[in-house]
Amino acid sequence: MPPTEIPTSLPPMKDLTTENLTENVHLVNSQCTDPRLRYLLERIVTHLHTFCLETRLSTEEWNTGIQFLTQIGQISDDLRHEMILLSDTLGVSSLVDAINHPRQPPATEGTVLGPFHTHDAEDMDHGAVLHSDPDATRLLVLCTIKDSAGNPVSDVKVDVWEGDSKGFYDVQNPGRTGPDGRGVLRSDANGEFFFQAIVPVPYPIPMDGPVGRMLEALGRHPNRPGHVHFMLDKEGFDLLITALYPRGDPYETSDPVFGVKESLVVDLSTVEDEEVATKYGVKVGTKLLTYDFVLLSDQEARELRKKNAIKAMQKQGRKVVFHNDLPIPAESS
Amino acid sequence: MPPTEIPTSLPPMKDLTTENLTENVHLVNSQCTDPRLRYLLERIVTHLHTFCLETRLSTEEWNTGIQFLTQIGQISDDLRHEMILLSDTLGVSSLVDAINHPRQPPATEGTVLGPFHTHDAEDMDHGAVLHSDPDATRLLVLCTIKDSAGNPVSDVKVDVWEGDSKGFYDVQNPGRTGPDGRGVLRSDANGEFFFQAIVPVPYPIPMDGPVGRMLEALGRHPNRPGHVHFMLDKEGFDLLITALYPRGDPYETSDPVFGVKESLVVDLSTVEDEEVATKYGVKVGTKLLTYDFVLLSDQEARELRKKNAIKAMQKQGRKVVFHNDLPIPAESS
Repeated sequence: MPPTEIPTSLPPMKDLTTENLTENVHLVNSQCTDPRLRYLLERIVTHLHTFCLETRLSTEEWNTGIQFLTQIGQISDDLRHEMILLSDTLGVSSLVDAINHPRQPPATEGTVLGPFHTHDAEDMDHGAVLHSDPDATRLLVLCTIKDSAGNPVSDVKVDVWEGDSKGFYDVQNPGRTGPDGRGVLRSDANGEFFFQAIVPVPYPIPMDGPVGRMLEALGRHPNRPGHVHFMLDKEGFDLLITALYPRGDPYETSDPVFGVKESLVVDLSTVEDEEVATKYGVKVGTKLLTYDFVLLSDQEARELRKKNAIKAMQKQGRKVVFHNDLPIPAESS
Repeated sequence: MPPTEIPTSLPPMKDLTTENLTENVHLVNSQCTDPRLRYLLERIVTHLHTFCLETRLSTEEWNTGIQFLTQIGQISDDLRHEMILLSDTLGVSSLVDAINHPRQPPATEGTVLGPFHTHDAEDMDHGAVLHSDPDATRLLVLCTIKDSAGNPVSDVKVDVWEGDSKGFYDVQNPGRTGPDGRGVLRSDANGEFFFQAIVPVPYPIPMDGPVGRMLEALGRHPNRPGHVHFMLDKEGFDLLITALYPRGDPYETSDPVFGVKESLVVDLSTVEDEEVATKYGVKVGTKLLTYDFVLLSDQEARELRKKNAIKAMQKQGRKVVFHNDLPIPAESS
């Protein structure tokens, strides 16, 4: 049906050429009243157009891209998140995590959440066995949590999860009846917690979809180095989503989702002392992973984000103002 | 299952930070043996990362973007092309068309194909009536086709299509039994062709999906100014996909898909002369659209594309080589 509403205030845009198309799109989008969305669109459009101009993107390539992105949506559902996998494999998820949860020494670095976290993990006591997998190599995980001043942080909600000895997470088992390989602990008065996990093994990310085809075309392997996931949550502290990677994994330096950081690669040892074994309820000879987590406070993280945002805007030659704690250029506020 | 294939040649990548993540992604993607794909990925990753860094993209915004793109794929099917609509409304389709079909005077400019072209239009004779719509205002369309030296071009396949007097294309009619408002002609020995169309009216692009919600959030209207589509195809000439826009449409300067170019805006006149009316089989007083199309040869278009590509690569400070007629940086060939 012919429309009735006629724009009146929009500055006229016409005579599109390869040279002025970008500014014409900006002009139309400048009608947006939300300054943050306006800024995001300005950058999206600029980057999309610059990409096409720099590469002289062919109609055939454009069409391949349109189909690729469409198929990613079509294969996705409540359990399969192919668009997140695309973001992961292009390093975007890792980058967004680093931007939103910046760290400075001595704080523990974060890494990608991944697609296998669930909300049905059960509370467990210190020393509990995380995994029912009989084929796995047992691993005692023994950790402390401190704040950046070195004080123990008690009562942190510690969400842990990992795959089994074949590299599968419980949610990948079609017959799953409940959580396995995951649990929730609380740090004690000394900021300590411990549990029995298994020595993690590498596993491939899903390769049967469009992202798998992309990795194949790029000559990339799909294998993540083995790791144990941790999510440390306590009011007043910046949420820490991270993972620990036992050193020596063949994929340690080529993680397809760019999650490995040197500070998160750990040397496993062995429980040698009978007294220690008894204290933590394991046998002598059990593999041992120890780690001291350091949390940033909310306030410390907010200040770091702000400082980094000001620097990033200056790099563009723009003065910054903040809108709901997020940066926008001063000229558009 | 744990993977067996172990990478050997890949330079080690580790200790990801916000600063070195981009180069680490490039390092992993540098395994790609196709130099053009490698170049495309290098630019995609650079732009995606720069976008996140410049905007300090929040986790919530990232998540909104992931969902938005996923939903675009999910609403798409063989008839609905929401990802193309996104490309259209961000000016990308128009830009890719301009890059792939560059024009220099006196050649006619191209514009977006749009989603309503079909392959079932029937051949029709000069003077045929394109549209069965009884409510429409008749329009005699009278055109010539020349090459850039001014010689008439005969036997060009001229594919024309347009919406009806309510702004709908035949494919939008659920009861469609065959083509209406579309047809295929051939230019005669003088490079001429003519047919009876209708005076086009504005119409909205589909607003009931994710792209519609985006336009609403941006405060943009969905209405395309009225136009008649043309596709001019002849061996040895660069395909011309274009449209003509009668002047004075309320949406002429704010087309949501950035298709209008000043050179494609036409002044309609009226058939005044009895002899002309008889010659073309219409009544005196019928609205008249005349246009002289000029086609570039394949060779002329290829040279222009190459010249533009070299310029675009120089702008990046890169030397260019060509791979299947598409540019790649010399250092990666």
